[in-house]
Amino acid sequence: MSSAFKSCRSVLITGANRGLGLQIVESLVSGSFCPGKIIATARTPATAKELQRLAEKHSNIHIIPLDVVSEESIAKAAVEVDQIVQEDGLCCLINNAGINVIANFETVTAEKMLENFHTNSVAPLMITKAMLPMLKRAAARETGMGIHRAAVINMTSLLGSVELNWGERANNFKWYPYRTSKSALNMITRCMAVDLEADGILCMAIHPGWVRTDMGGQQAPLSTEESISSVLDVIGGLTEKDHGSFLHYTGL
Amino acid sequence: MSSAFKSCRSVLITGANRGLGLQIVESLVSGSFCPGKIIATARTPATAKELQRLAEKHSNIHIIPLDVVSEESIAKAAVEVDQIVQEDGLCCLINNAGINVIANFETVTAEKMLENFHTNSVAPLMITKAMLPMLKRAAARETGMGIHRAAVINMTSLLGSVELNWGERANNFKWYPYRTSKSALNMITRCMAVDLEADGILCMAIHPGWVRTDMGGQQAPLSTEESISSVLDVIGGLTEKDHGSFLHYTGL
Ligand SMILES: NC(=O)c1ccc[n+]([C@@H]2O[C@H](COP(=O)([O-])OP(=O)(O)OC[C@H]3O[C@@H](n4cnc5c(N)ncnc54)[C@H](OP(=O)(O)O)[C@@H]3O)[C@@H](O)[C@H]2O)c1
Ligand SMILES: NC(=O)c1ccc[n+]([C@@H]2O[C@H](COP(=O)([O-])OP(=O)(O)OC[C@H]3O[C@@H](n4cnc5c(N)ncnc54)[C@H](OP(=O)(O)O)[C@@H]3O)[C@@H](O)[C@H]2O)c1
Repeated sequence: MSSAFKSCRSVLITGANRGLGLQIVESLVSGSFCPGKIIATARTPATAKELQRLAEKHSNIHIIPLDVVSEESIAKAAVEVDQIVQEDGLCCLINNAGINVIANFETVTAEKMLENFHTNSVAPLMITKAMLPMLKRAAARETGMGIHRAAVINMTSLLGSVELNWGERANNFKWYPYRTSKSALNMITRCMAVDLEADGILCMAIHPGWVRTDMGGQQAPLSTEESISSVLDVIGGLTEKDHGSFLHYTGL
Repeated sequence: MSSAFKSCRSVLITGANRGLGLQIVESLVSGSFCPGKIIATARTPATAKELQRLAEKHSNIHIIPLDVVSEESIAKAAVEVDQIVQEDGLCCLINNAGINVIANFETVTAEKMLENFHTNSVAPLMITKAMLPMLKRAAARETGMGIHRAAVINMTSLLGSVELNWGERANNFKWYPYRTSKSALNMITRCMAVDLEADGILCMAIHPGWVRTDMGGQQAPLSTEESISSVLDVIGGLTEKDHGSFLHYTGL
């Protein structure tokens, strides 16, 4: 884990019960991210057994419920986060929760498009809005830009890049709901970067690579440890020049 | 009007009751696009007075109702279009209808995001799906690529470009719902271009410039005549090399 996390007082992760979100929590605690507070959110914490086991061993993990598409749940989570981080504020928000509603041209429906867009694009925006007071509080305590101060990280995908959806690559994944949701998320990241800059809050999007999770499937080349170890290195090293950027887990 | 329209047997325009959509109909008929069939669709034809006046003068204008966010309305429109175009099929579908649900970081809500996404991104996809049999029928009659054969044109905006939403430009229009909807539309355009290529259906997105309409406002530099005259020149001249492209009304 990047040593830059030492100056980060708190991280919130959405979708922390499995896949990449769970791995972020594991990698942070095993990289001795302590006393840093880890706010691990999950849609249904009661069924998040692995996360619960981790929290039993590490007192700096705080599990709170958060269904990212529910306004009520977001509002409740914001109150809980406020109580957890107190005057320190929230240093790093990782919008990781996501779904892939697989549909091609023949099978795509308006409902599938709207569902994927809500979870992958709208939710990160609404959660950032709700966490803004805590992010601002953290930002007010420091200078410069990075996770030592305050940052919003959106988990995006290479499949969301319009530039890259052409030629050879385009033929592999004709996933209308997922691709559009991630390309919308990239736009939201840019818009938020413009809006949060004055408060000193860094905002960027990162592609974690193709990773073996429920979503990525078993044929993916990267393990969650490999992906997240690189992702956390990148996040740890973010500075002003990365504001508004779209980076790969490799840092490029 | 580009003379290439002479070989185009039918054009369907969504949102043809005012703004750029109405201007497309006007420019086509005044450019003597006849006997080419103009299928001018509007959410509520009964209140589309100007369009009705035009249709009284030009027998090749067919007005049909189409609320682009209603599945039922899309299905009904497809049946009517089928009857109008018959064995000729539909040569050119212009997905023009759009809304700008203005909201900045403070005022944006999930509902506003979903509403704009539904109209500007999902609707062009669902309408293209519904019109596909007619587009395929037109495509089967010709070779090459362009409106003489079959084409889907999506009205996009420069504001939907992630690349361009940076630096000086970014600060002017922090419209979350609109920007994300157009960037999603650009991704949909690319995905559809990949999928429709085998049928010989050209698919691209065009930015009409900043135009004086209800949406563009009175301070915009271009009149609807100026914008659409250029837009129709570009559409008329589309060939294989423009498949999957994002062009400006200037053709660049
Ligand atoms: N794996 C890859 O190869 C890959 C590649 C590029 C980008 N990504 C992105 O990385 C992120 C994580 O992906 P992953 O591979 O870890 O996926 P995953 O294994 O399918 O896990 C998805 C996570 O998101 C959560 N989630 C979904 N909807 C939610 C909701 N409404 N409220 C709260 N949580 C919700 C899930 O919680 P539940 O258990 O409650 O469903 C789960 O924790 C996603 O944004 C994905 O798009 C992944
Ligand atoms: N004007 C500009 O500067 C500019 C710049 C870039 C891109 N564009 C794009 O160009 C397109 C046309 O814009 P405009 O300037 O002509 O806008 P406009 O004057 O506001 O007209 C919008 C049109 O879309 C229709 N529409 C909206 N929702 C609909 C629905 N659910 N069903 C059917 N029709 C619907 C409206 O019909 P109703 O009368 O029933 O509401 C109207 O005909 C849009 O996609 C816009 O984003 C415009």
